[in-house]
This record gives sequence, structure tokens and C-alpha cells, in this order.
Amino acid sequence: MARADYANKTISLGIVVFPGFDPLDIFGPLELFSGISYTHNWTLSLVASKVGPVSSRVPPHVMVPGMPPLEAGHMLQQSIVATHSFQSAPKLDILLIPGGMGNVFLDQHNDTSIEDFVVQRFVEVDYLLSVCTGSFSLAKAGVLNGRRATTNKASWGWVTKSYGTNVTWVPTARWVEDGKIWSSSGVSSGIDMTYAFLRHLYGSEDQGLTTLMSTIEYAPHTNPHWDPFAVVNKVPGANETASLADCVAPVGLD
Amino acid sequence: MARADYANKTISLGIVVFPGFDPLDIFGPLELFSGISYTHNWTLSLVASKVGPVSSRVPPHVMVPGMPPLEAGHMLQQSIVATHSFQSAPKLDILLIPGGMGNVFLDQHNDTSIEDFVVQRFVEVDYLLSVCTGSFSLAKAGVLNGRRATTNKASWGWVTKSYGTNVTWVPTARWVEDGKIWSSSGVSSGIDMTYAFLRHLYGSEDQGLTTLMSTIEYAPHTNPHWDPFAVVNKVPGANETASLADCVAPVGLD
Repeated sequence: MARADYANKTISLGIVVFPGFDPLDIFGPLELFSGISYTHNWTLSLVASKVGPVSSRVPPHVMVPGMPPLEAGHMLQQSIVATHSFQSAPKLDILLIPGGMGNVFLDQHNDTSIEDFVVQRFVEVDYLLSVCTGSFSLAKAGVLNGRRATTNKASWGWVTKSYGTNVTWVPTARWVEDGKIWSSSGVSSGIDMTYAFLRHLYGSEDQGLTTLMSTIEYAPHTNPHWDPFAVVNKVPGANETASLADCVAPVGLD
Repeated sequence: MARADYANKTISLGIVVFPGFDPLDIFGPLELFSGISYTHNWTLSLVASKVGPVSSRVPPHVMVPGMPPLEAGHMLQQSIVATHSFQSAPKLDILLIPGGMGNVFLDQHNDTSIEDFVVQRFVEVDYLLSVCTGSFSLAKAGVLNGRRATTNKASWGWVTKSYGTNVTWVPTARWVEDGKIWSSSGVSSGIDMTYAFLRHLYGSEDQGLTTLMSTIEYAPHTNPHWDPFAVVNKVPGANETASLADCVAPVGLD
């Protein structure tokens, strides 16, 4: 059932970016948000500490206490252009927080700009989405207290143990929906969550969404309980009896 | 069987970007190329007409002769930063050409800069990859003459009829491999092709690649003949008897 008040409004989407963000956490969902903006009115703010290029290069950061920082400077990097700062970002209807190891660097340098922004905008937004370890920032912001959420299963240990009170971390979940907070598992899960999210907003009959999926030739995982990566990554409490495979097909065939 | 000469070399990857490129055509493959650069030596050149931001916004362009130009200015756009110009790009081992409707605009404005670059670098590169309607540029460059290739099935008509001599356009194909030219179908197909491509380079035993897929939680389509979107998009000659579904699972389980 579509959200009636979203049918004809201009939806203001904000996506936070930070040095060492994971590009696919953003560009998977954005392929759908951008595509749906052909038939529906949306605006996009790419929000960072300041306007201008933001690199996916992960600054050196300590992953194991007492060990030297993990160096990732030799890896390929790409820069995208932030359109707004945390201060200049407009009113938002939807806010998406991606993951990427850059958020570990920020945490280790006592930079809480992402979390401060989440707290500041939490009441205003209709929806708060996280992809991958973006839920680390949500937990740190305190908005997951008493809620259910998930994260990248390869990062389960450090994400779930770091911040948050009474957070019910769901070990087997492609994504979790708890009220207005939707959190996905790792990286590519973001696009599956976004498809489900857009169906939530516009209903299952939205032809623009169906056509879009066939244009980008993506057959989404539509079962939020399919999560073989929790098993592969040995997450405690993962459902080991469910099938590791999922059979996907183009949407809109029935 | 891995390519022996790639095991220890630094691989120079070039990706062309142009106004109106499709971001996921690039960032799907780049998630894998960037990830593999943790354990293998790669360099990346994002190549455009000039260094600096390049927008995904599609300029107005005529899709139906005699009709007004298609306006896409209201759609969401993102800008990424090109690191090299066509003139300054270094020697490349692999060149990837994405799609996106911006290449139609360039064609209609007699801008052949992408195709000129492909021709200029064709002998030098070990591999030439295209994602989605990037194969339109390859056909226009003449490098598909007498070869097999595919393209986005939602764009089949205009891509396959525009340029090229004796191009065998393969209607049912997630991706096609013809010697050093690999071409994928639409958008999300690029990541499946890239996984197969990296297995071609490094072999099926490469642990870095297997771990990467479980970290980004992507279960790839590994059958290049799975192409339900050819059927959905009514491509002439599409295989209508094959299953529209594909069952995918994490790699490296066996």
C-alpha cells in the first residue's frame, strides 16, 4: 500500500558522504532514486563536512588495538562532489547514511559530525536509511536505542559492540525495517532495500519502478530474511538452516 | 585458469566518463576493481574530456526523430571527479566504457571523443570492456566489426542499428566475451561481468576475490546466458524458453 502523502510531493533526499565512504553503498540506491525521479519529483543533497569533492580513499585507521593502522592508501579511489555541507543541507524527507571504513577513522578521531547531523535531522525526516556499516553511525547517534537494525555481516563484531543501548541487532537480515528506520546489510544489500523501500513509498503497482528495474536489468532479492552472508561471515545467531541461495527474476512479470 | 602475466603486475585501468554517464555502470564494476586492489596492484584513471567534475545529468537529446528533445534535467544527478583527460591518460591495460544516455547527446552533436580514444588505445589495451550502452561507442569506434557483443536490452533497437559492420549482436546474453572485448548488458550486468572478468584474470582460487564478494554481500549471476531482460524488453531473437529466474548464492562455498 503506497504512502498517500508521497504520491505527489517533491521528496527531498539527503545522502551523507565522508572520506572513505563506500561508493556502491550510495550508487546502488541512487540508481533507483535517480531512475524514479524521471516519473516522480525528487531532489538530492549529497551532504558532507563541506561542499566539493569527497574521496572514497580510507585514511589509515586502527582496526586491532595495539596494532599499526590499516593502510588502504594504495587502493583505487574515486571522488564524488558533495553539494551541501551539514550546515547548508535543506529540509530532508529521507536521509541515507552509507558505510565505508572512513567512519572508523572519524570515530577514532572523535569526529561526530555524521552522528550530530543524524540527531539534528532525526525528528524532521520521515525515513532514516543506512547501508552497510552506516548503521554504526546510527547506533552511535543513539537513534537505534530500543530498536532493531542490521549491518554488514563482515563487520558484525565491531559494529554491534561499539555503541547503542538495547539495540536489537538482527543477525539474519538482508535489511531490517523498524518504524521509520531502515537498515541494510552490506553494500549490495542497499539496492535490494531501496527497491523494497520504493515499493513501500509508491506501492507495488508503480509502473515507473517496474520499468526502471527492467532498464537497469536488476532482479532484486525481495526477501529480507535471505542472508547467507551472515552464515558465510560466521555471525553468531545466524540462521544456518535457511537456503544459502535465492532465486531472483525480473519484477513485474505477474 | 589465471592469466600468468597479470599475477604480479600493476594493472592500469581506465574508465571513461562523460556528461550523462550512468553511475552504476561504473560503480558496480569499480566496487570489485577497488576491492581487488587491496590484494593486487592496480591504478585507476577516470578519463573525460577534461579533468574535474563530470555530471550524470543527461543533456536534452532527441530520441524520436522529429519529436522535441527528451528532457532529463529534472532528474537527480551526481558528479564524479575525472582524474585525466583523453590527452593525459596514461598507458592502459584495461579500458572500460560505460553507458548512459549522454552518449546519445554526444553522437547527435558530432562529438567523437570517446570513440577516438577507443580507437587510439585499442591496440595498446589487453582488454576493452563495455557496460550497458557503452557498446554503442565501441560499435561506433569500429572495433566491433566482425565481432560479437551485447548491450542494454532496453536500448537494443537504437544501439544495434546505429553503427558497426558485421557486428553480431547477441540478443540473449548477460555479457559477451569476444577475444579481448567484453561487453555486458544493462547497468547491473556490469558487476556480474566484472566478477567473471576478475576470475578470468586471477583464476577461480583467488581468495581476495572470494572474500571481497562476501564482504560486499553480492551473490553474482555467473551464467552469461541468463538474460530474462531480453525477453522482458522484447528483443528480437531472445531465448524465450530459458528460465527467467536465476538462483544465486555466495561464491566460494564449494
